Amino acid sequence: MSGDFLALAQPGVQQLSPYVPGKPVDELARELDIDPATIVKLASNENPLGASPRVLAAIGEALAELTRYPDGNGFALKQLLAGRCGVQLDQVTLGNGSNDILELVARAYLAPGLNAVFSEHAFAVYPIVTQAVGAQARVVPAKEWGHDLPAMLEAIDSNTRVVFLANPNNPTGTWFGADALNEFLQDVPERVLVVLDEAYIEYAEGGDLPDGLEFLSAYPNLLVSRTFSKAYGLAALRVGYSLSTAVVADVLNRVRQPFNVNSLALAAACAALQDVDYLAESRRLNEAGMLQLQDGFRELGLGWIPSRGNFIAVDLGREAMPVYQGLLREGVIVRPVANYGMPNHLRITIGLPAENARLLEALGRVLARG
Amino acid sequence: MSGDFLALAQPGVQQLSPYVPGKPVDELARELDIDPATIVKLASNENPLGASPRVLAAIGEALAELTRYPDGNGFALKQLLAGRCGVQLDQVTLGNGSNDILELVARAYLAPGLNAVFSEHAFAVYPIVTQAVGAQARVVPAKEWGHDLPAMLEAIDSNTRVVFLANPNNPTGTWFGADALNEFLQDVPERVLVVLDEAYIEYAEGGDLPDGLEFLSAYPNLLVSRTFSKAYGLAALRVGYSLSTAVVADVLNRVRQPFNVNSLALAAACAALQDVDYLAESRRLNEAGMLQLQDGFRELGLGWIPSRGNFIAVDLGREAMPVYQGLLREGVIVRPVANYGMPNHLRITIGLPAENARLLEALGRVLARG
Repeated sequence: MSGDFLALAQPGVQQLSPYVPGKPVDELARELDIDPATIVKLASNENPLGASPRVLAAIGEALAELTRYPDGNGFALKQLLAGRCGVQLDQVTLGNGSNDILELVARAYLAPGLNAVFSEHAFAVYPIVTQAVGAQARVVPAKEWGHDLPAMLEAIDSNTRVVFLANPNNPTGTWFGADALNEFLQDVPERVLVVLDEAYIEYAEGGDLPDGLEFLSAYPNLLVSRTFSKAYGLAALRVGYSLSTAVVADVLNRVRQPFNVNSLALAAACAALQDVDYLAESRRLNEAGMLQLQDGFRELGLGWIPSRGNFIAVDLGREAMPVYQGLLREGVIVRPVANYGMPNHLRITIGLPAENARLLEALGRVLARG
Repeated sequence: MSGDFLALAQPGVQQLSPYVPGKPVDELARELDIDPATIVKLASNENPLGASPRVLAAIGEALAELTRYPDGNGFALKQLLAGRCGVQLDQVTLGNGSNDILELVARAYLAPGLNAVFSEHAFAVYPIVTQAVGAQARVVPAKEWGHDLPAMLEAIDSNTRVVFLANPNNPTGTWFGADALNEFLQDVPERVLVVLDEAYIEYAEGGDLPDGLEFLSAYPNLLVSRTFSKAYGLAALRVGYSLSTAVVADVLNRVRQPFNVNSLALAAACAALQDVDYLAESRRLNEAGMLQLQDGFRELGLGWIPSRGNFIAVDLGREAMPVYQGLLREGVIVRPVANYGMPNHLRITIGLPAENARLLEALGRVLARG
């Protein structure tokens, strides 16, 4: 290993397989040699509504300070979030997307010899951040595609330091209720940090899906992570946050990069939080699109996993990869999820009505070809 | 340590002291209750020229895709950088600022039991990223404020995996020549990754200061890190990069977050790279400002450390902190560097001519008061 910089890398890093993102529109356009504007991308759970005018105005103002470093403390955004979430400023941690938050947790609390517990079919970033620091992943079999919380409790051992829960979960769309969460939090050892990933909460709020914030004061080992990449429509900018005790936030803030969130993201997130109309329209569009896709799947004789996110995992009843490839040739990008242990499903993001129709038509043609 | 989430954090993390940034203009404006527009900030080595119109135009175009995730591979920017730097695409790693690159190196190649070698008075992020992963810092005494490269070579032991070199160095502005670099690279063990931090290279190019890229092909253990935050004027957006062998780039790309660089940063960096006029004007302004400050220091009877960056460390010949505080009351923010082992110096960023004049006048008044 004299000058072998793969062998010299940390063992966890050597075995890392990077995250596989949705196929970019430009890449498919190059491959098919067609106009990118004709491609429909329903692959990355992005908000189809386009940018909010209020957000664009806020970014425009922030451009005046482009040569200046961001406010490393994110004071204005933290203040807004603390007010919204009913917590103190020092309980908020900002991240370069909520991916950053998940990674900060792993770097602060995991190491070789320790482990993290999460569910089968859960978000791919949990195993990646666990592996990157050389910790062990304890993956608990899912129950009807969702988290089996009692089994996850049983999987916790003396070396467990973190549990990742996603509610609703990506890519399945499954969720658990307030009672189940409460029971879990009551029984989990207090030295285990429970990361409740609510990346899709704004689409799912209400009904039987709990708001993690309501559990924060009772459980000091709870951290709730959220993002501006989905319902708030800021995926390009990278901004997410977590709410926890001040002690956990202090630890995460030591580990984060001093300027981890860029200035335009900070300004845009402040505007997005106050843009009530955009959020309402995002939800309305998502609910309508969810019904449109389900109607279409029913006509095609396909099943699906009930979802509370802005996406739905459709069950093709056969290997999904050839169907994914067929859809690409139709100019429609969706997400294969074989790497999530779901070889017969495709995850489809809820798009605009016309995009959903394009997907359904293309899917019908591809399936008809056999 | 049942539910003590400070004690449960990794040992290196528990002892981390976060990076101390320059005081933000808004913060001082609140404290003094004055208009932020009247404050001069020469504290963070930011480009005083303001944003480039070509960059602003590129950001404007990229705003159309605000709800979409960035290109996680940064294809367009990597292609431009590879062409400019005469390397292959797979030798480029993009970072959320070059801070991200430095951290990726530490996370990939350092761990408890291993160490990193760097110089006294070197950039504060080197000890932070080293400590965060629980590795040991071997700090080598400086020689006339600059890197003592022979002593740094001697400090390398069998557990050394990384050496951080800064050329020019921040906050001293000191530099070393091509021959010294070449000798160092020839003698350093090939299992030690040499990180040559060239954050300020665009201000320093030419003369006796080497271009690290010219050493890449001869030394597979060399990584050159650069940033768009300084001469390119994009500090707000967070984008930096490194050039290395493809093997090292592959390792760093496994560790980085899948969308570590935001879309507006990617678009802006592409435009900035092609904006030859902006870069030339930034350099011209910096050279003139450097002379203006040196003339002013001379009149005030002050010494300084010769600098090749966009900043200069002035020697007050006495404790600098009270002078820093006095300047704040004059509405001028500079950078105290006592935490860099330089209690008698202040680091002053080269500003616009009028800003430099404001600083010199204020400094004269503060010093005259005793």
